[in-house]
Formats: sequence, C-alpha cells, structure tokens
Amino acid sequence: MTSIKRRSKKAGLAPGTLIHMGRAKAGATRVDMVEYDATHLEKHRVASLDRCLIRPDSPTVSWINVEGLSDLEVLRHFGSCYGIHPLVLEDILATDQRPKAADYGDYLYVVLKMIELDDATGEIKSEQVSLVLGRNYLISFQEGLEGDVFEQVRNRLGNEKARLRTMGADFLLHALLDVIVDHYFLVLEKLADRIEELEDEVIENPAPATVQSIYHLKRQMLFLHKAVWPLREVVSGLQRRDSRLIDDATIIYLRDLYDHTVQVLDTLETLRDMLSGMLDIYLSSVSNRLNEVMKVLTIIATIFMPLAFVVGWYGMNFKHMPELDWSFGYPMVFILCLSISGGMLLYFRKKRWL
Amino acid sequence: MTSIKRRSKKAGLAPGTLIHMGRAKAGATRVDMVEYDATHLEKHRVASLDRCLIRPDSPTVSWINVEGLSDLEVLRHFGSCYGIHPLVLEDILATDQRPKAADYGDYLYVVLKMIELDDATGEIKSEQVSLVLGRNYLISFQEGLEGDVFEQVRNRLGNEKARLRTMGADFLLHALLDVIVDHYFLVLEKLADRIEELEDEVIENPAPATVQSIYHLKRQMLFLHKAVWPLREVVSGLQRRDSRLIDDATIIYLRDLYDHTVQVLDTLETLRDMLSGMLDIYLSSVSNRLNEVMKVLTIIATIFMPLAFVVGWYGMNFKHMPELDWSFGYPMVFILCLSISGGMLLYFRKKRWL
Amino acid sequence: MTSIKRRSKKAGLAPGTLIHMGRAKAGATRVDMVEYDATHLEKHRVASLDRCLIRPDSPTVSWINVEGLSDLEVLRHFGSCYGIHPLVLEDILATDQRPKAADYGDYLYVVLKMIELDDATGEIKSEQVSLVLGRNYLISFQEGLEGDVFEQVRNRLGNEKARLRTMGADFLLHALLDVIVDHYFLVLEKLADRIEELEDEVIENPAPATVQSIYHLKRQMLFLHKAVWPLREVVSGLQRRDSRLIDDATIIYLRDLYDHTVQVLDTLETLRDMLSGMLDIYLSSVSNRLNEVMKVLTIIATIFMPLAFVVGWYGMNFKHMPELDWSFGYPMVFILCLSISGGMLLYFRKKRWL
Amino acid sequence: MTSIKRRSKKAGLAPGTLIHMGRAKAGATRVDMVEYDATHLEKHRVASLDRCLIRPDSPTVSWINVEGLSDLEVLRHFGSCYGIHPLVLEDILATDQRPKAADYGDYLYVVLKMIELDDATGEIKSEQVSLVLGRNYLISFQEGLEGDVFEQVRNRLGNEKARLRTMGADFLLHALLDVIVDHYFLVLEKLADRIEELEDEVIENPAPATVQSIYHLKRQMLFLHKAVWPLREVVSGLQRRDSRLIDDATIIYLRDLYDHTVQVLDTLETLRDMLSGMLDIYLSSVSNRLNEVMKVLTIIATIFMPLAFVVGWYGMNFKHMPELDWSFGYPMVFILCLSISGGMLLYFRKKRWL
Amino acid sequence: MTSIKRRSKKAGLAPGTLIHMGRAKAGATRVDMVEYDATHLEKHRVASLDRCLIRPDSPTVSWINVEGLSDLEVLRHFGSCYGIHPLVLEDILATDQRPKAADYGDYLYVVLKMIELDDATGEIKSEQVSLVLGRNYLISFQEGLEGDVFEQVRNRLGNEKARLRTMGADFLLHALLDVIVDHYFLVLEKLADRIEELEDEVIENPAPATVQSIYHLKRQMLFLHKAVWPLREVVSGLQRRDSRLIDDATIIYLRDLYDHTVQVLDTLETLRDMLSGMLDIYLSSVSNRLNEVMKVLTIIATIFMPLAFVVGWYGMNFKHMPELDWSFGYPMVFILCLSISGGMLLYFRKKRWL
Repeated sequence: MTSIKRRSKKAGLAPGTLIHMGRAKAGATRVDMVEYDATHLEKHRVASLDRCLIRPDSPTVSWINVEGLSDLEVLRHFGSCYGIHPLVLEDILATDQRPKAADYGDYLYVVLKMIELDDATGEIKSEQVSLVLGRNYLISFQEGLEGDVFEQVRNRLGNEKARLRTMGADFLLHALLDVIVDHYFLVLEKLADRIEELEDEVIENPAPATVQSIYHLKRQMLFLHKAVWPLREVVSGLQRRDSRLIDDATIIYLRDLYDHTVQVLDTLETLRDMLSGMLDIYLSSVSNRLNEVMKVLTIIATIFMPLAFVVGWYGMNFKHMPELDWSFGYPMVFILCLSISGGMLLYFRKKRWL
Repeated sequence: MTSIKRRSKKAGLAPGTLIHMGRAKAGATRVDMVEYDATHLEKHRVASLDRCLIRPDSPTVSWINVEGLSDLEVLRHFGSCYGIHPLVLEDILATDQRPKAADYGDYLYVVLKMIELDDATGEIKSEQVSLVLGRNYLISFQEGLEGDVFEQVRNRLGNEKARLRTMGADFLLHALLDVIVDHYFLVLEKLADRIEELEDEVIENPAPATVQSIYHLKRQMLFLHKAVWPLREVVSGLQRRDSRLIDDATIIYLRDLYDHTVQVLDTLETLRDMLSGMLDIYLSSVSNRLNEVMKVLTIIATIFMPLAFVVGWYGMNFKHMPELDWSFGYPMVFILCLSISGGMLLYFRKKRWL
Repeated sequence: MTSIKRRSKKAGLAPGTLIHMGRAKAGATRVDMVEYDATHLEKHRVASLDRCLIRPDSPTVSWINVEGLSDLEVLRHFGSCYGIHPLVLEDILATDQRPKAADYGDYLYVVLKMIELDDATGEIKSEQVSLVLGRNYLISFQEGLEGDVFEQVRNRLGNEKARLRTMGADFLLHALLDVIVDHYFLVLEKLADRIEELEDEVIENPAPATVQSIYHLKRQMLFLHKAVWPLREVVSGLQRRDSRLIDDATIIYLRDLYDHTVQVLDTLETLRDMLSGMLDIYLSSVSNRLNEVMKVLTIIATIFMPLAFVVGWYGMNFKHMPELDWSFGYPMVFILCLSISGGMLLYFRKKRWL
Repeated sequence: MTSIKRRSKKAGLAPGTLIHMGRAKAGATRVDMVEYDATHLEKHRVASLDRCLIRPDSPTVSWINVEGLSDLEVLRHFGSCYGIHPLVLEDILATDQRPKAADYGDYLYVVLKMIELDDATGEIKSEQVSLVLGRNYLISFQEGLEGDVFEQVRNRLGNEKARLRTMGADFLLHALLDVIVDHYFLVLEKLADRIEELEDEVIENPAPATVQSIYHLKRQMLFLHKAVWPLREVVSGLQRRDSRLIDDATIIYLRDLYDHTVQVLDTLETLRDMLSGMLDIYLSSVSNRLNEVMKVLTIIATIFMPLAFVVGWYGMNFKHMPELDWSFGYPMVFILCLSISGGMLLYFRKKRWL
Repeated sequence: MTSIKRRSKKAGLAPGTLIHMGRAKAGATRVDMVEYDATHLEKHRVASLDRCLIRPDSPTVSWINVEGLSDLEVLRHFGSCYGIHPLVLEDILATDQRPKAADYGDYLYVVLKMIELDDATGEIKSEQVSLVLGRNYLISFQEGLEGDVFEQVRNRLGNEKARLRTMGADFLLHALLDVIVDHYFLVLEKLADRIEELEDEVIENPAPATVQSIYHLKRQMLFLHKAVWPLREVVSGLQRRDSRLIDDATIIYLRDLYDHTVQVLDTLETLRDMLSGMLDIYLSSVSNRLNEVMKVLTIIATIFMPLAFVVGWYGMNFKHMPELDWSFGYPMVFILCLSISGGMLLYFRKKRWL
C-alpha cells in the first residue's frame, strides 16, 4: 500500500526529476567498492566521489555497492561518470518500480525486489535493488535497509578458485540475481510452514482468526506475486537478449536462473491454490458447526416441548378432571413422559442426528 | 452507465456526423494557445478563429488547448485547417471513447480519460481528452469540466531550462500523457486508503453497509480498469510505432510512460484482489456471528427447557403425588435443578461452546 | 435455446441442401431493390424474378433487400444469378449462424444478428441478417420479422449529399453493419437501465424475485455476448482483409466500426461484472437478514425462558414451600423477574445486538 | 471414468503393441465395403480377408467400414495392406483417444467420438470412430456398439445425383465427419431441453435432487467438452493442411464443418454458463427458504413466550397475590394477552416479516 | 511442501555447487549398466568407476542406471567422463526440479517425475528421474526410492525381436518416458476410483470428513498438475527439436507420447472439475440438512407453544375463572388443543414442509 502512496508525490513533475520518493532515510549513503580479477581482489569503502571510480579500459571487474539513496549527489555522480540516462536515475530513486530490465547499449539496467520475512511480525520486508551493468563494472543500488543478501556473493569473491573470479561483470550480475531469487525460496519456505499450520488449524479448530490469517497470507502472496511475476520476463529477456554486455558463457547460467524463477512462481501458485482451498474448508466447517448446534437445539426442544405440554395439562385447575383423582394417574403421566422422550430419541436415531 | 446512454443518441446517423453526445455544456468553448521554442514562449487566449492559427512551416511548437466542445464550429475550423478526418472529429465529440491511438499519416490521434476522485462523494469524475499531434503542433480537446491536470505542464513550459522547451511537439504529447497517468496514481492512492479503512472495518465491525462500500469500490475499480486497460495498448503502440511524428529521443520517454501504465494496472489488479478477498472475510464473519447467536440460544434453551419441565411436573394437580408431601421434596427439586443446569454447563464447556 | 433445436432438423443431410430451419414464416418473401449513384436513385419492389436483376457491368450500386426466407425459389434465383455457393445459401437459411465473414473471391458473405429489446417482455428479439457483397451490388437477407433497423440507411440514401451516394457497395455494407452495431448500444442502454434498477432493489429490498431477475439478465447478456463476440473477429477481418471488393476509403470507416464493436463488448463485460457483484450483495444481504431474525428470536427466548422457569417454580404444589407464605414473596418474585430481564438486556446491549 | 481405467491396462507395454483396451466385445468383427464412382455403386459384406481389398490404382472410391475391434487379425490385415503405422493401429484399438488428426503422407488418420444420448438413462453413450483416408479409399473403424450415425451417408451414396458420388474419398471423409458433428447438435438439443426443465424446477420447486441433476448435467457437459474441444483443432487443421489427399474443392466444405464445430462449442459453453447460474439460484433459494422458516419460528416464539410468562405468573401459588382475588383479574389478563400478541404482530408487520 | 524446504538449503551457494538437497539417503549408490545392439545384450552391476564406462565410438547402445544420489563422486565421475555441465549435475541433485528438457549439443538433459500412489496412505510418492541422452548412451539418475517403473523396459530389452533392440539410444529415451507417462494413468485411475466413491458419499451421506477428503484429493491433483503440466512442453519440445541426437524414426513415437501427455492433462482437468463440482454439492447438501433440521424445530415449536399457552391459561389461579367450573370445560380444552395442532399441521402441509 505504502508504495502506492509514495508514487503520487511525483505526479506532474518532469520525467527525470530526481526527488526522494522512498522512505526518509536518516543514515548517510555508503559506497563500497570491490575490484577483482582472477588473481587480485581489492575491497574498500569509497570516501569521496571527486573523480570517477572506474577507468573504462580497466581489465579488472569493479563492483560498486551503493547503500542508501538519501544523497542525490551520489546518484548524479554516477549518472555523469557512466552516462546513465536521467530516467534510469529517476527509476533508481523511485523505490516502487516493477521489476524490469532495459538495455541502453552501453549499460544494462535491471531493477527488482530483495525480500525478507520478518520472523517477529510475519510481514514481508522488501527492498528495491537496482543493478547497472557496464562492460567492466556493476553498480548496485540498495534502498539502505539494514542488511542484504549479498554477503554470500562477497564470500565467494573472496575464494580465488571461484568461477566468479574468472568471469566478467555479467557473471557477477547473474550471481547477485541468483542470491536474490534463492532468498525468495527462503521466504516461501517460511510461508509454506505457516500455511501448513493453518491447514491443521482450519481442520481441527477453525476460529474467526483463522480466516484473518488466511487473508493475511493471501495478501503476502499477492505482494510476492507482484514482485516475482515480472521477474520471469526480466530473466527470460536477459537470457535471450543479444546484448554485447552478456557473454555466451553466462547465458547458460541465466537459463538456470530462469528455471528457478519459474519454480518460485509455480510454488507461489501452489500455495495460493492451497489457501483458496482452505477458505472453502473453513466455510464448510462453519456450516457444519452451525448444523451441529441446531441439531442440539432441535433435539432438546423436540423432547421437552411435548413434555412441558403434558405436565402443563395436568397443572390445569378444572374442577372436573377425572385423571387427577385416579390413583394411577401420576405414574401414568410418568410413563407417558418416558414414552414421548423415548419415541423422540428413536426418531432422531433413525434420522442419524444422534 | 451514463456513457452507455449517451452513445445511443447517435444510433443510425451517418458516421462522421457531428452532434453533441456528451453532457450539455452551457459555458462557451475556450481556446488557449501556447507557442514556444527553446528561447521564446508566448501564451494567449484565442479570440476568433477566422484564420488557421498555425503555419505548417513554423519553427516553433504550438499547443492549442480547447476547453469545452459545445461550439461545433470550432471543431469544424480545426478539421478544415489541419485536414482532420470527420471520423476523428466525431470521436472527439463522442465523449465515451475507449482509449485509443490512430496514425493518420499527417497527424496522430490519441484519446484517453483524465480522472479525478471527488473527495466529497467518493465518486470518480472522468473527462475525455483528445490529442491531435501534428509535425509542429499539438491540439488538446477537453470536455470542459472545471480544472484540468495540465497546470504542471504549463509551469514546466514556463521554465526556460526545461527539456520540454528544447524538444518537439511529440515530447509535449508525452508530457501531457505523463501527467494524466501520474494522476491515476493519485486516485489509486485515495482508493487504497479507503480500502485499508474498509479492511479494518470488515475485520472489526462488519455491517451490511460494508458490503455496499465494497461493491461501490469494485464498481470504481471496474471503471478505472476500463479506462486504463486499453491505455496500455495505446502507449505500447506509440512507443513501437514508426510514425515520423515521434522522434527517437521521445521513444525512451514513452517506454518510461509505458512502465507507469503497467504499474497502474498492476496496482489496480492488486486492489481488486484485495476487495474480492474482503468479501470472503465479510461472509465468513457473518457466518461466525450467526453461529455465535445460535450458540447463545441453544445454551439458554437447553438449560431452561428441562428445568421448566421439572417445575411443571410438580405443578401438576394430581391428588396422589407423594413427593409433594415430603418435607425434603422442595429442597430436592432445588438440588435437581441445580444438577441439571450444572450438567448442561459442563457439557457445553466440553464442547467448547463456552 | 430454440436455435439449438432448429439446427438438429438438418442432421445428416448433405451440406448445401436447402431446407427451412428457422421459424415457419407464413408471409410471402418480399424483395426490394434500390439502385443509386451520386445523381440518381431508384427504388422499387421486385414483382417477379424471371431474370437476373443486376447487370454485372452496371455503373450504379444496387441494394437488394430480401425480407423473409420462406420461398426457397428466391434463394435459388440469387444463387444462380450471382454464382453464390450452395453452402452460403444453406447458411442464409440456417438462422442460427454464428456471426462470420467469408471471402469467396467474387463476393463476400457476412452474417450477423440484428437485435432489439422487446419493451413489454424484456426479452431480446434477434433476427439473422445475411449480407452478400458483390462488385456493384449488395444483397441483404432478413429472416422476415416485423421491422428492421435499416430505415435510417434508406433515409440517408435519399439525401443526395450523403457520402453514401458517392461511394460503392462496400460503403453500403459498412453503413448496414454500422446501424446494426449502433442498435446494440440501444439495447445495452435499456439493459443498463434495468440493471441500475436492480441495483437499488438488491440493496434496499432484496426479494427472491431479484435473484431471478439477475439470472434472467445474465442470460440476456450471455445471448448478447454470443452474438457480439464473434462479430469483433468479423469486423477486424473485414478491415484487414485484402479483398478487392473493399475500397481503401472504406477501410478507415471499418476501423471506426471495429472500435464500436469493441466498445459494445467492453460495456457488455462491465454489465456482466456488475451483475455478478450484485449476486454477492444479494447473498450477503440474505445472510444479514437471517442474522437479524435469529437475534430477535434469541433475545426473546433468552429473556423469557428464565422468567418462565421462575414463575413455574412458584407454581409448584409442594406442601412445604416457605416463600409462598411470606408476605413479601410475591413482590420479591416481581423484582427477581425485573432483574433477570434487565440483566439480559444489558448483556445484549454489551454484545451490540440491540 | 471408465476410459481412464482402460488406459492403465497398457502401462509399460511397447508402443505399437496391439491389445484390447476397450470393452470386451462378444460379437464378431464385421467388414462392409462400398465401391462407387459417379455411375456405379457396389455394396457387399466382406467375408474373408485373404487378399487386400483395394487396388491402389482403382479409379473408384472404396469405403470400408469395420464394425467391432475384437478381431486383431483384421486390424493387422489393414495395417499390412495399406502400410498403416503400428502406432495408428494401436490408437484405433485404444478407445479412449483424444480427437486428433495426423498426416502420414500416404494416408491421413482422424480419430473422434460419435455420441448419442440414451433417452432412458439420460447418459451419453460414446463410440470411438477412427478414419483412415487414402488416395482412393477411406476405412472407418467403429468400436462396434449397436447402430451408427452413418446411415444417412449411405442413403446419399445411393442417390446417383448426389455430389458425394462425383467426388473423391476426401469428400466422403467430410461427409462422415459432418454427420457426426450434426449428431452433436441432436444431443445438445436434448440436453438443452432438460436444462430448461431444470430451470423451471429450480425457480419453482427446488429440491436436493435438483442439485444432483445439475451436477449430473455438468458432468455430461464436461464429457462433451472433452470430446468436442480438440475436434475444433482437428477440423481446423484438416482445412488448413496442405495434404495432397484433400482436394481444394473439399476445403470449402471443411471450412463449413469448422463453423459447425465452433457452434457446437459455443452452445456447449452457453449451456455450461446456464448450469452454473442455476446453482447460484438454487443456493439463494435454499437460503430464502431458511429465512422464511426462521421467520415463522421467530414469530411464533416471540408471541407465545411472553404470553406463557403471563399465564405462568398467575399460576404461581403465593398466598398473597391480590390480583387473583380481583373480580376483573381474569378479564384483565385476557386483555393483557391480546395486547401483547397484537403489539408483536404490529412489530412484525412493521419489519415486513408478515 | 517438503520440496520447497529442501530448496532453501542451497540459497546463496554458487550455481553448480554439488550438495545434497533431497532426502538423506542411507543406502549406497548403485550403478547398473546394460549394453545392447540388435544381436547382443549384456547386463552387469558396475562395481568401480575408475574408468569411463562407454567408449564414444562404441557401436552398441549403453544404458546406465544410477540409483541413489548419495555418492557425489559418482556424479562427478559422469560429469567428467561425458562432459556434463556442472549446472546439469546440480539439477540432478536438486530433487525438486520442474520437468524440463535442455539441449547441450553433445547430450540432451531431461528431468521429470516418476510417480506412484501409496495404496495404504493414499499419498502420491514421487521420485525425480534425470535422463542424459548422448549419441550412443543414456544415463538415468533416480533418487533411490525402493522400486522403479523401468522393469518393463528391461523385459522388452530382453526380447531380441523388440524394436527397442534395433534402434538407438533416443528410442530408449522414448521408452523410459513412455513408461513413466503410462504410470501417470495408473495413478489417475486410482484417484478416479476414489473420486467416484467420494461422489456417492457426498450425495448419500455427506460428513465433514468428506470435505477433507475432497481437499486432500485436490492437493494431490495440484501436485500432479505441477508435475505433468511442464512435461507437455518438454515432450512437445523434444518432438519438434532438431537435435541430431534424436532420429526421425523416433519423432513419430514422441508425437504419440505427446498425445498421451495431453490426455493425462485432460483427465486431470476433468477430475479437478469434478472435485470442484462436488464441493458445491456438499455445501448445498449441508444447507439442505440445516433447512430440514430447522423445519422440524419450527414445526414442533409452532404446535406446542400455543398448546402450552392454553394449558398454562387454565393453570392460572384466579378466583374468578368461570370455565374452570364448567363441567364441559375440560373436554372443551381438549378439543381446542386438537384443533390448534390440527390447524398447524394443515398449514405446514400447505407449505409443503411435511
């Protein structure tokens, strides 16, 4: 929801205008740089951006990670150094982008969502990641939330024997996309666990809160679907794209990534179908309980209303009521009441209500 | 609904016949003109249309905004000056057009809806905007409702450094489409707010009015969907179109606009899914309340019907009822009644009704 | 439904066999002919069909309207005069055709439905119209129901300045298709009115008859959808078709017609969505009423059952019931009853049932 | 369902293995042959298959109809005489084929379902028909159920003037497909009749059996859909196919057949939509009846519970109950009871429950 | 569900890393090899993998079946011997693959699910099968569950006359795919049986457990659909693929396989539609039962509440109640009660509640 609201701030401004549309971020923008080739690796935090960080003819691969988007100057710096189009800069700032990829000739722009499930609240936290792939560099822009999923890629870079070290920036792009998609599986796994719990709950002990949980999970699914569905197109496009920035050796890995993305969508679809089925079960279980309640009521009423009539009958004060004077009148009423309730019980047994 | 009705006025007339199909408009038709290039800008209200306003070889860009469609002569004037096809003129008048774009070689015709949410009534107000793009001019026709969303474009035109000033009429077309689509976000934001309110209401305090609100919002969504869905095709067509009226530099901006349009549709779809889910919650919550009511009834009946039978029993007037004479008869009945109601309460506790 | 039944009469006959499949038509077949060019117009009823009516090299456009299909000889006459394929003649007779267009080289065959809403019964009346377009002629075949929608085209033909007079038979084809599609709007408008009435009814005073009305309207929509949906393909095909029978000047008008057809479908879809939403409202409103009824019952039962127990208690005939002899026993019971009902009312108020 | 079971018998056998998968058929396999050209016609039952029946260079058209698939030798005979692929022979035996057409160069294989509605049980009976079209012959294989729908084709063959006699085997293929599709209309007509009866029933007198009928019809529709849906592709393929076995003159007839197939699907779709709508009506009608029942109960309870309290009150045995001694006490209670029930009735009238 | 969880173990690892993601497998990895051509056949269990098993120029076909994936060395062995890409090896280990086929030039990789229905638990057991097809070899990798469906293929290989023996490794690929798909029919048959049982149950004796069974079956269907739906694409791709590894003679068999796969999907779809329909029946049947229960309650209450009022009336203790002294008072009340209950019964009969 919040993403919808943020967007409207920008209504009517010239396209390419750089303004903050995301959450206000107090912390400073941090820029980290890794330069590597098969034999060397150098990491450092970039202190000042007074000159362009990457020489276009550098033989090494440079990965610049920008954490936090509060400092518009940083964006402008990269824009002017690497010739990034103002619309791309605007998209990087607008943190409600639909996942997409666009080829600008000299560089490739990919934007997607990095997600995490907050274990405490059960809410999905999502952070937009923009990736700009050049010939020998990759710049990643993150919104600046605490933590990211790239740690594993950094570790792999540290390993000299890793394939990552011997290949170009396009393979780094694949590696980053891959960890992001792999984290979708982590989130889906947690959601699947909660759906299985709900499944037991809905069958054994359905309560109004169960429906709210189902609805809540459905919303999460909706959110995930919105994030992953366009990603399929993005990855499929990257793999088919005849961009000179992407090497043939990387294509096969992108195909693998595509398979993973489709699998995420498949799983999502399955979980959604399960949630829908659960609502049907819930409703039928509520109906069944109503039936059960009404049967109890009906059995009680059907047995005791005739009995109440009988005892009311002999509570009448007519002068002339011969039965009242019979000595066997009282036991007769007792037997009558027994027969009535017995007959009723037999009738309900026959109707399988008991 | 009203749009359906208006259309039928025209049934059977020759295509290209100019008649009023929209709302009767009392106010006069106003024509405003802006002529600009990178260095100059001239605005004025056009008083008389005795000659064609734009010379075909003018180096400046002209934007003519026509507010109100009541004066058919105005339309005919533009038709004859710029060679606009009668069917296009008819479409401009028919204010229930489906968004579309058509390339007539010398000019491009685009029609779409400008929407606003009336805060007081919660109703969406929609006004049809027709845009005719020529080589060095753009004519916009509005139905004539109070206000429009173009003010921001006028402001940007006033700024000499704006990119808008250095580019052609096709960029102006983009600018106008862009503000219109941006306003869809504004409307969606307000609707999203109301959906969130409804969400709380449906969970905490569902009332019959809630369903009506859901239905009402669904209708608004239906309306928006009808307005935005074809727009996607329109913008996608403009961006792919090899019209010589649209410059390559503008295409990249149209692609950006396309992304926005898809995002509007995505958001719309998400909101619709949320509304559908809410109805399910509402119905299950109504069922739950019924269950609760029935449980109260059943508990009361099940406790008091047997008790009523017992006290009715000892209200009988048989001569020979030995218990009546026992001194401990009365406390015995008291204990009996206590046991019956206690037993029932235990039974309900076991069934988790209490 | 009736259309399904008619079709089966033909099962197993050779294709191209001419038999009556439509409604038995008592009236004779009427043939009317209009010959026109920009300057002349001649109308007459054709009395006898002993020779072919149109010379293939005639410079004028001929429109032959055949009303009623009872006389098979008339069909055979046109078949042999203009070389119409037996399968086309069979299709003309089979008045349950799906709208379609087929290009037979020398002529173009178009079949579609002309519809009207019977104001008295609310039923849609539909009549099949077959159009055979040749180089300089157009033959229209109607089933023969009272009245048609072509009157406005006849009037326009009477007007010497009408564009219709200066163009070929293909423009006449467009004109006829156009009035037919325009009449769909008229029918949709009336249906939309009734849907709006139903909408008020379903919210304010839902009754079982409302559901039947919704169902009835849904069936009408189903029928319309079946008639209009294939029409889209037909018109789209005509406009793209490189038939030498259709002039380029007409294509632009057919594109306009295509837009109208799509709009009819859009409107239809919107109305169907509204009807579906209404059923949801109806059901939720029925559930709400049930809840309300049950609350009344439960409140009454919950107040009076304990009271009945109390008064039953002091109606017992035990010898030893000390309270009966107390002088303040009777007012005490009165106060007890007041407290019980007061307490219950407070409980219900707390539960918001009152 | 039975078709699913039969299939599993074959699991794991080599493709092309001939075994019986259909119903056990006691009767012998009958082979009938018709040889014809424009002037001659010869029919006979084939007694022995010791030599191939058709010479490849015969100028006449041969139609061999094989009734019953119990004799595998017969199949092998045709397989070896006309070079039919083992997989085709296997498909002929597997009587649960999805309708399909396959071009094997020398011959064309078409398989589809011939259906009939058993009037007694209301069940659809289906028989698989395999057609093998060669240059100058057509072999049809039927499962061997009593009767077929080809009688009308045989009659037309008997008529010397029939177009069927002057054309090739491909036209015979069309003729057989045509009668099969025409019989779908017959079945749909009968189903439509029953749906209309159900429609009246569901509105006027819905009973649990109505739902079962709806469900039963839905299953029939499902079955028909499964049989007809792939047929569309089949006929569309035949008509587009550039097989040298199908003459151009036949193509136009296949196009006609395609239209019929689409119409069958359309009708099927309409009937399915009607059935779905009916279930909604049924459920809303059941809800309405429940509401009605509950209103009766509530009215009765609401009137008589207060009255029972009143009369219970004056049935108490307190010594000191002044009203009991009043002479106007008894009529006073009468008036009180009248007022209570009158007031309740007014309340219900106000609530429109009466 | 479990498949979702397994996947997440791998999140963030480099693609191509070989780790166990499936179930922990205690048993050792078994490798069996069959070498055959038209005249010879040799089977043996492979004891050690110290050299590559297949010479690239061997004229015979080799089928290596690897049972169990616990020994990563085995995988690495095949990877290095036949040049299999690390991503393929990773996919073989990741036992939650979506069915897919990929052409790597020298070899073709196909992965799919082998399923079985556990008769005891009614659960579907699924095992992933990876097939690597080279020019003269086929390697199949199974997860290592007890038993497989390939026994029949082994038997056919034992038969010298089998077509399998005379054709290449591509035909063996087809044979293995074919038995796997045939086993889908076996599973569907068993599910269809259970659906038919449920169908009777839901009509004759619906219980809450019925809904759970429906839901359970729906989940099975969901699972099957997920396994079979992509398979259609896979087989369709194989049949169209211009891989030099697949012979033209095999293509026709793959087409047959494709037909079977589509039929599995069709059947699946039919069963799913039937299950959906059943839930509707269940709900309507629950509603009907509720109606029935409420009618019994209402009839009893409506008859006995007025009677209770009458007898309560004459149980009042007013001094002045003339009827009490009438000698015909008591029989009069008897008649009154008879009339009330008789009248009520007539009323219910009229309303068709009885």
